[in-house]
Amino acid sequence: MTATDYGRAFAAWRAGAGQDWRDYTRHAFVEGLRDGTLPQASYLHYLRQDYVFLIHFARSWALAAAKAETLDEMAAASATVHALVHVEMPLHVETCAAHGIDRVTLEATAEAPGNLAYTRYVLEAGYSGDFLDLMAALAPCVLGYGEIGLRLKGSTGPYADWCAVYGGEEYQALCRDVGALIDGALERRLGPEWQSLPRATTLQSRFDTATRLEVGFWNMALSPIGA
Amino acid sequence: MTATDYGRAFAAWRAGAGQDWRDYTRHAFVEGLRDGTLPQASYLHYLRQDYVFLIHFARSWALAAAKAETLDEMAAASATVHALVHVEMPLHVETCAAHGIDRVTLEATAEAPGNLAYTRYVLEAGYSGDFLDLMAALAPCVLGYGEIGLRLKGSTGPYADWCAVYGGEEYQALCRDVGALIDGALERRLGPEWQSLPRATTLQSRFDTATRLEVGFWNMALSPIGA
Amino acid sequence: MTATDYGRAFAAWRAGAGQDWRDYTRHAFVEGLRDGTLPQASYLHYLRQDYVFLIHFARSWALAAAKAETLDEMAAASATVHALVHVEMPLHVETCAAHGIDRVTLEATAEAPGNLAYTRYVLEAGYSGDFLDLMAALAPCVLGYGEIGLRLKGSTGPYADWCAVYGGEEYQALCRDVGALIDGALERRLGPEWQSLPRATTLQSRFDTATRLEVGFWNMALSPIGA
Amino acid sequence: MTATDYGRAFAAWRAGAGQDWRDYTRHAFVEGLRDGTLPQASYLHYLRQDYVFLIHFARSWALAAAKAETLDEMAAASATVHALVHVEMPLHVETCAAHGIDRVTLEATAEAPGNLAYTRYVLEAGYSGDFLDLMAALAPCVLGYGEIGLRLKGSTGPYADWCAVYGGEEYQALCRDVGALIDGALERRLGPEWQSLPRATTLQSRFDTATRLEVGFWNMALSPIGA
Repeated sequence: MTATDYGRAFAAWRAGAGQDWRDYTRHAFVEGLRDGTLPQASYLHYLRQDYVFLIHFARSWALAAAKAETLDEMAAASATVHALVHVEMPLHVETCAAHGIDRVTLEATAEAPGNLAYTRYVLEAGYSGDFLDLMAALAPCVLGYGEIGLRLKGSTGPYADWCAVYGGEEYQALCRDVGALIDGALERRLGPEWQSLPRATTLQSRFDTATRLEVGFWNMALSPIGA
Repeated sequence: MTATDYGRAFAAWRAGAGQDWRDYTRHAFVEGLRDGTLPQASYLHYLRQDYVFLIHFARSWALAAAKAETLDEMAAASATVHALVHVEMPLHVETCAAHGIDRVTLEATAEAPGNLAYTRYVLEAGYSGDFLDLMAALAPCVLGYGEIGLRLKGSTGPYADWCAVYGGEEYQALCRDVGALIDGALERRLGPEWQSLPRATTLQSRFDTATRLEVGFWNMALSPIGA
Repeated sequence: MTATDYGRAFAAWRAGAGQDWRDYTRHAFVEGLRDGTLPQASYLHYLRQDYVFLIHFARSWALAAAKAETLDEMAAASATVHALVHVEMPLHVETCAAHGIDRVTLEATAEAPGNLAYTRYVLEAGYSGDFLDLMAALAPCVLGYGEIGLRLKGSTGPYADWCAVYGGEEYQALCRDVGALIDGALERRLGPEWQSLPRATTLQSRFDTATRLEVGFWNMALSPIGA
Repeated sequence: MTATDYGRAFAAWRAGAGQDWRDYTRHAFVEGLRDGTLPQASYLHYLRQDYVFLIHFARSWALAAAKAETLDEMAAASATVHALVHVEMPLHVETCAAHGIDRVTLEATAEAPGNLAYTRYVLEAGYSGDFLDLMAALAPCVLGYGEIGLRLKGSTGPYADWCAVYGGEEYQALCRDVGALIDGALERRLGPEWQSLPRATTLQSRFDTATRLEVGFWNMALSPIGA
């Protein structure tokens, strides 16, 4: 299984993002997770910022449900919100607790600028544009983590759990579902030849920008102070 | 148990809506459900329009999740979307099937103007305003059905099921939860004395308009042709 | 000069709307404006409702400016808002005053359901969709009035002024500009063959629904009581 | 005349922002404009980024017009959009041309992350919240430039023009108008004692975040590479 199983749109967008995509998925933070050299302070900083990120990420998927054109799209988006709010976030709270970050500390996390930039970009893309703009802006996070997870699966060391979660079958199945949701949404609006339309350029641009904002997020996470 | 258990805001809004509220909750359509005299053609027309309504209603709650200020608000709103999409709507499809309306027919339902007016009013209130505008516009449907259900519970005849669902403990618990969600949302933004603020007037106006649109919905439902 | 000068998209949408378009542009209200038989009470009712309509119409064009992709689109949309707020609406206030409706009365107008349905549909289309959804929902009003104006230009009788305004060169130029804005917006997003895409169906549906809501608006205007 | 003429809300928000406000209005970039020591490369970088900023800033004011509750609010917001699109931006293009940045180069400006973060934050605040959220997020830019302009007015050297524009009566009048718009909008929704409501805390937070994003914008502008 490879990341190409995440569908046609993702394959095209990933190729289109070029070096930005490599900068994101091969970032020093990611390599540090893989070989265990990531400083724990960076990981804890990441966990706290990721908590804030997940809130806005769930809001973005809720907006997708509001903007869906079919019941299937709505069901897929609302299932994602539900999983994020009722499964992922409680799990995140537990993980943080296991690392000594209690709930009060977690909820008091000040949002880093690189975090704010990313989440507001995604939400604004969704509000100003339509369901497709939102999907293109959400794809790098969902599917990039899937691709990273596939590569890091089986890593040992302090971050083995992280690698196991994103490389695991449950998360990989989610990636395939989201990839299929995106392909279906594109075809039902723009037809099978959507890549030849000018619209494809703005969607690629959404994907590229979100990818660069992922790089910024890793940069921020690596440097607990500032960013 | 009475509808006053649905919280302080609802009690105030309900009183403020006056005759409009009575026109809605004591509508001829409702009385026909109660005593079984509602023509079946009206009921089937209602079921089909309600299916279209539920789609937009779910979208509205998804928008509420996107606009929530706290995790609790988000969790409540997303649980509602989830219940609507994954429980209510499949149930609705079943009910319609039991009445001889197959899925294809159901999905081909042309949205009646009175239906469109109501759902777009609610969604637009949410997009143009904030979480509170959305709550005030959503309250008449959720809580009005609860109040009607309480009164009609135990009715026999062809619409006994409908009366049992909305008068039942599960739906009543939902109404109390939504009432508490609304009270909490108002207080955390506007403080305990929110009823004395000018904002209370615009929220009452949202509630009143949505109530009148519920009357329009019943009118439409009673008259299968037109409206 | 004919309404076909309003661009390619309008020509296609107008043809696609079929009987609904004729019901709108040949409505009894319109014929009454043309031959002067429209009861004055209906006209005054229309003027008051149209005042409320214009507020939401201006809001819709402002939303279009917020959702524009190019400076030219933004400039066109913002010029329309500006004209509506700083020219059309003051003019409307004057016209009403000349018919004995003072400003206080005008501002106290209760929005009729058929009015609310139309404006919220357009705004919600814009919020939930993108710039194109908004254009498709706005087109029937702007361009339909242009087409009606062309046909009624030169009418004498009590409504000669109304006919002269919408049939006049200034309004006709606006229609040509809006038609060109729409054609340009479609091509820059979807390419020259956009009519063959599935997206064309949803845009036609936006146009059709807005056209039917125009019919509903005339119906409401004809019957000062109710609707 | 002082910045306190910009209204009560601004005075409160400015005081509430504390050190962040000083970091913004006394930033090294600002001091460089004042005493002429700002490197020209920084100024040119700023001009190009500010062009991109103005587009989103105009979109934000257009959204404010869409979300306005009164005709006066709508007129004020739409006049601002109109001035930005039809006066400020052409002027900006001219200024850039005078500094050797032609239109093609200007329009090809790649949006810096600090720029994107700021504009999307403001727009998202407006979409997710209401008119007041938008005002609180827009205030630091509009009124902060006014306060800086007042202090820098009369500066000589290479940036005398910039100082004259923002310190000039036309811009100062705009600041007083926007200040009055904000005070009026707050009172008509939340009453005269709005500062005692919990809502005041979230509005202050909007203002604070936007102020910090202004600091980030200056940081980015000072360092033509990166940021």
